[in-house]
Amino acid sequence: NNTIILKGMINLKKIKINTRASYDIFIERGLIKNCGKIIADTVSTRKIAVITDNIVDKLYYETIELSLKENGFALSKFVFPAGEASKSSETLNEIYTFLCENNITRSDCIIALGGGVVGDIAGYAAATFLRGLDYIQIPTTLLAQIDSSVGGKTAIDLPCGKNLVGAFKQPKCVICDSDVLSTLSDEIISDGMAEAIKYGMIRDAELFDLIATHTLDNVNEIIDEIVYKCISIKRNVVENDEFDTGERMILNFGHTLGHAIESYYNYQTYTHGSAVSIGMCMITERGCEKYITDKLISCVTAYKLPSCCDAPINELIKLCSNDKKCESYDINYILCKNIGHAEIKKVSISEFEKFILNKI
Amino acid sequence: NNTIILKGMINLKKIKINTRASYDIFIERGLIKNCGKIIADTVSTRKIAVITDNIVDKLYYETIELSLKENGFALSKFVFPAGEASKSSETLNEIYTFLCENNITRSDCIIALGGGVVGDIAGYAAATFLRGLDYIQIPTTLLAQIDSSVGGKTAIDLPCGKNLVGAFKQPKCVICDSDVLSTLSDEIISDGMAEAIKYGMIRDAELFDLIATHTLDNVNEIIDEIVYKCISIKRNVVENDEFDTGERMILNFGHTLGHAIESYYNYQTYTHGSAVSIGMCMITERGCEKYITDKLISCVTAYKLPSCCDAPINELIKLCSNDKKCESYDINYILCKNIGHAEIKKVSISEFEKFILNKI
Repeated sequence: NNTIILKGMINLKKIKINTRASYDIFIERGLIKNCGKIIADTVSTRKIAVITDNIVDKLYYETIELSLKENGFALSKFVFPAGEASKSSETLNEIYTFLCENNITRSDCIIALGGGVVGDIAGYAAATFLRGLDYIQIPTTLLAQIDSSVGGKTAIDLPCGKNLVGAFKQPKCVICDSDVLSTLSDEIISDGMAEAIKYGMIRDAELFDLIATHTLDNVNEIIDEIVYKCISIKRNVVENDEFDTGERMILNFGHTLGHAIESYYNYQTYTHGSAVSIGMCMITERGCEKYITDKLISCVTAYKLPSCCDAPINELIKLCSNDKKCESYDINYILCKNIGHAEIKKVSISEFEKFILNKI
Repeated sequence: NNTIILKGMINLKKIKINTRASYDIFIERGLIKNCGKIIADTVSTRKIAVITDNIVDKLYYETIELSLKENGFALSKFVFPAGEASKSSETLNEIYTFLCENNITRSDCIIALGGGVVGDIAGYAAATFLRGLDYIQIPTTLLAQIDSSVGGKTAIDLPCGKNLVGAFKQPKCVICDSDVLSTLSDEIISDGMAEAIKYGMIRDAELFDLIATHTLDNVNEIIDEIVYKCISIKRNVVENDEFDTGERMILNFGHTLGHAIESYYNYQTYTHGSAVSIGMCMITERGCEKYITDKLISCVTAYKLPSCCDAPINELIKLCSNDKKCESYDINYILCKNIGHAEIKKVSISEFEKFILNKI
């Protein structure tokens, strides 16, 4: 039931997310050139505040501005320096001031234009300014398209940890233009591919095979399909558990150790995707049969992702028990004994330690 | 269906609030001495972070600590300087750091012990830290008991305006001890009585009469009844419109002008209640028959509340149109043509100006 007809957009795919406030994700090459039409059909205001970083601003703001102005929107723009360091309460306060100064009201709309950092902080500003106004995600990295822009998790970092302050806030729509992915560096594509491999591991053996039969060099040929399939999987999981109290935990496959690895290296050595890749391999090595581990390691290697690191295992275990996902005295970790099937394991910290220290 | 039996608490009243996450409000003189039992029956964690201000800390923390410890709770405490100036992003960041340092997890609980400022900022911290954990309100002023602790609105102020950042987050329960009200100064009671009069005006002619037949000097005799009736009214309104998109607007009777008055005097000259009192009288003078206005003015006067101020009317109108409650080009104001009945009026800024400038 797609009421939006876009000239030349014959391959436009739409995925409906049925959370409390339902919304559509649009996927198509070249889509940002037509974003104004989609947004005009989605929100009633014609006043929009765009939040982006300095890199994405230079690459895509003009395209978006043109399409939005053609569709009658008045825009204001806030640009902050690219990078995780900007996902702070300082940037957040600057965004609030910008929204005040531009008289953005509850009936107006924010656009988050960029990768995960932009999506998270702009989404969080939209969740909290005036107790919430509409926002739209235009994710410009693979990771943001298949992960952070879907599911309504928004957050900022604190000095004492990442994503420690946040809100659940679903966007009004998500606009995924797979063409923008072709401008990304190999490292940024790898970063996103770790999550794509994760989706295959936890829910879709066919997706895993599709990815495993390609490499970083030719993945662009199938990137649309990957984006579509990953979002579909995340949609199913998020619809079942919008507020992350159960099934959604399977999305954390590789993440318990991954977060510990990122933290151990002070977020300098490994990207999120690389750390998750190591986390997935480590947990699989310890809990699954060898042929599963071999398949996984061979797949991540094809996307130039690491499968191990030299951080002392005891330090990682300590950091795991500080993870906010842990309830007071337990750790949840995810295991995929067969590709495409995930189980949630809830264990005490000492059981987790024993599990991690004893490879099969 | 009250499953909580408290020794000696024979007059314990319970009001159930059926919002998305439903919760109970308990009202009784001397209740904070028994708060531990109620809280133990409400939450499963035994780890609690208490947030309060330096004045309330000295008056009531020990009582609460004793009851909570008797019921097996481990406590940590964060105290900030009393006053609206503390409802800032600076205090909020200090609270987040305190929660990190005390290893508060998603399954633990925050207690907001104090007046509106404490309830708003502690509730907002609970709404956003780790994307939300449980919190309990123990309101210690009349205003907080009948207004800010009920309905799940949480917020902090920005340099550019009050309550500009916030979230809807319902508490797990609210514990109203009317004995604590007897330690309050006349000014603080007056401040709360303005909202009590408002409830009578918008929804309950009997409540209005009860209040109007008492004065500030003897209101303590009926304070339990007032608290109970006001909360019941707010409950009904909030249940119908949890996210403030319609009926809940009637709670803003007197507030559109009230906020403008507070702001015009830089929040120095008039308390919130005094400003709301003036706002109610001004709007009623302009939109209602004289005997209604007379009744209202006589009632607010009995509680030492003002009915007018010397701010230039044009300045107030300008400030009204900046209020965040206004949609882009319209103003909503509330009129009670009969005591106990409120109407929402949605008008353009110029119509509002005309209405305010022309007394009947």
